[in-house]
Amino acid sequence: MKTRAAVAFEAKRPLEIVEVDLEGPRAGEVLVEIRATGVCHTDAYTLDGLDSEGLFPSILGHEGAGVVLEVGPGVTSVRPGDHVIPLYTPECRQCKSCLSRKTNLCTAIRATQGRGVMPDGASRFSYKGQAIAHYMGCSTFANHTVLPEIAVAKIRPDAPFDKACYIGCGVTTGVGAVVNTAGVEAGANVIVFGLGGIGLNVIQGARLVGAGRIIGVDINPAREAWGQRFGMTDFVNPREVEGDLVQHLVALTDGGADYTFDCTGNTDVMRQALEACHRGWGESIIIGVAEAGREIATRPFQLVTGRVWKGTAFGGARGRTDVPKIVDWYMEGKIQIDPMITHVLPLERINEAFDLMHAGESIRSVVVF
Amino acid sequence: MKTRAAVAFEAKRPLEIVEVDLEGPRAGEVLVEIRATGVCHTDAYTLDGLDSEGLFPSILGHEGAGVVLEVGPGVTSVRPGDHVIPLYTPECRQCKSCLSRKTNLCTAIRATQGRGVMPDGASRFSYKGQAIAHYMGCSTFANHTVLPEIAVAKIRPDAPFDKACYIGCGVTTGVGAVVNTAGVEAGANVIVFGLGGIGLNVIQGARLVGAGRIIGVDINPAREAWGQRFGMTDFVNPREVEGDLVQHLVALTDGGADYTFDCTGNTDVMRQALEACHRGWGESIIIGVAEAGREIATRPFQLVTGRVWKGTAFGGARGRTDVPKIVDWYMEGKIQIDPMITHVLPLERINEAFDLMHAGESIRSVVVF
Repeated sequence: MKTRAAVAFEAKRPLEIVEVDLEGPRAGEVLVEIRATGVCHTDAYTLDGLDSEGLFPSILGHEGAGVVLEVGPGVTSVRPGDHVIPLYTPECRQCKSCLSRKTNLCTAIRATQGRGVMPDGASRFSYKGQAIAHYMGCSTFANHTVLPEIAVAKIRPDAPFDKACYIGCGVTTGVGAVVNTAGVEAGANVIVFGLGGIGLNVIQGARLVGAGRIIGVDINPAREAWGQRFGMTDFVNPREVEGDLVQHLVALTDGGADYTFDCTGNTDVMRQALEACHRGWGESIIIGVAEAGREIATRPFQLVTGRVWKGTAFGGARGRTDVPKIVDWYMEGKIQIDPMITHVLPLERINEAFDLMHAGESIRSVVVF
Repeated sequence: MKTRAAVAFEAKRPLEIVEVDLEGPRAGEVLVEIRATGVCHTDAYTLDGLDSEGLFPSILGHEGAGVVLEVGPGVTSVRPGDHVIPLYTPECRQCKSCLSRKTNLCTAIRATQGRGVMPDGASRFSYKGQAIAHYMGCSTFANHTVLPEIAVAKIRPDAPFDKACYIGCGVTTGVGAVVNTAGVEAGANVIVFGLGGIGLNVIQGARLVGAGRIIGVDINPAREAWGQRFGMTDFVNPREVEGDLVQHLVALTDGGADYTFDCTGNTDVMRQALEACHRGWGESIIIGVAEAGREIATRPFQLVTGRVWKGTAFGGARGRTDVPKIVDWYMEGKIQIDPMITHVLPLERINEAFDLMHAGESIRSVVVF
């Protein structure tokens, strides 16, 4: 079949909207009509050529929502008409990782996903006879895409696509980091470094679980109002702090936070986030993706005296199990998404979404088909 | 009163055995007759002048066992005749840390302990009228010492002093890191870096909880037999590994260990220990004390993909609650101590214990009074 897609033909060049060829689903695969997709920093990271493993040409996008149109042989968990969210972190429920009960990082199709192809080693997308790489196993910047069955989460049909798509990455990453990775308990004090989309979702995750103080840290003063909207109780602008930021935060939290979250990708901030944790038990969770080659560092004394350094990917969420729950939480009003969707654009204007992101003018732009 | 003690008059000089003056216990304090004390690397670290906060003159030693001779006003939990282990990590059961249920790092007397004095701000030891600093709140290199009530663990009277003393630091640190800090579960794979006394106690802690493979790593081939004695199933000498040690260990454990423990104090080894953890859930626990100024580092990707970096002090053990249990485990034959006590010396020969340690010829030397 033919489908309309925004193709990244090479790095550092705008996406081009073209008709591409898409093969139908093979065994264990599903064809999904994408109805909406968020544009995420990770897409920009790849498009900007910062990801040394980025492949071109490719169809980017990994934060979508849509409808199953067709299923290949052997598919049992979804059928045509089901509403789904594509999963860049699949959940096969059979690999060592899925069976460990300790991680969401399913390894069933990791190797082929990294090479931009389906599990059988081939791409389903092509343009003028040339294969186009899948991206993060999703490629949601196309009106139709093919996914392995284990890489779609079936969601309730009444969730609006242009909001639910954000649960495919940003919402789940932020809320899940609080709920799944950190396991923040009611009354705990939380510090969130970086109040972009992920940070705001960490804040609302902390509010959801009844955290005590929820302190937002950002150098952009405009983010204070954003944080307050989702449950932030205190705002700290590092540029307005006299002296050491870590000491300031430790004083503000009577010895340090119970949980801190880095949502900046800056390795210096990651260190501050760890060191702002309470002695004895504070846990710091790295969410942000650092520039290639950058390392985190601290004195081992920080850990020996009880701080814990962790990270999270996709909010520790098992895609098929937990993503539908987060959709429920949204529909039940437990978490908010609508105010975070600052821009809605048709596919033809997808490059504007990247411009808005680079300019810091959007929380989340969503492209609708 | 007078008591015999090995005094560290200054750094980098042998201890001197002299009669010192010791004031009796004040309110909330106990006078303990030390019957045996281990000589630990931490004592050597201070005596060698490597601890920038080391105080002189002082009476070192923090791994002792003895008998309560006298208690000051208000002491209710121990009485004369009780057998006790002094605690460099006290347990007041009233501070924020003790009440958190999340850490053993009681802060009740931290400030004064760091300054080498009792909680009232004065030392009980003096020599020729000059105050001598307490060390780690214990000073077990004296035949008698004074301790806060919250810094003694009452133990069963049938435990031999010359073995029980080792539970005051090394045994609890190693076994506790497994049991309390990591919470290793039956069947889990464990890698232990550094097979000195702490490492051997980590190994026997892992055996105690039914760990699966227990892999010891040491550049000293003589440590292989030591490890096997306490439950090690595999030995890896990094000098005999072709290629990358981390890759070798990851291959040996089908993707990495569930838990790794650094017992070396070497920050490069700490990194290897983290990176030898299994993707998704492996936890690395730092036990070793690093040289001042050294930092640990890794790529944040290691954490984002699910590895956890932790540390432990005194094995995460609450002294008054958990130390008596470990004494029980020893008396019940669940853990071994006797073969680790490689040398027993009278106080007069205490400097030999340091020589043996520096030469790598002892696992643990114990001084008996």
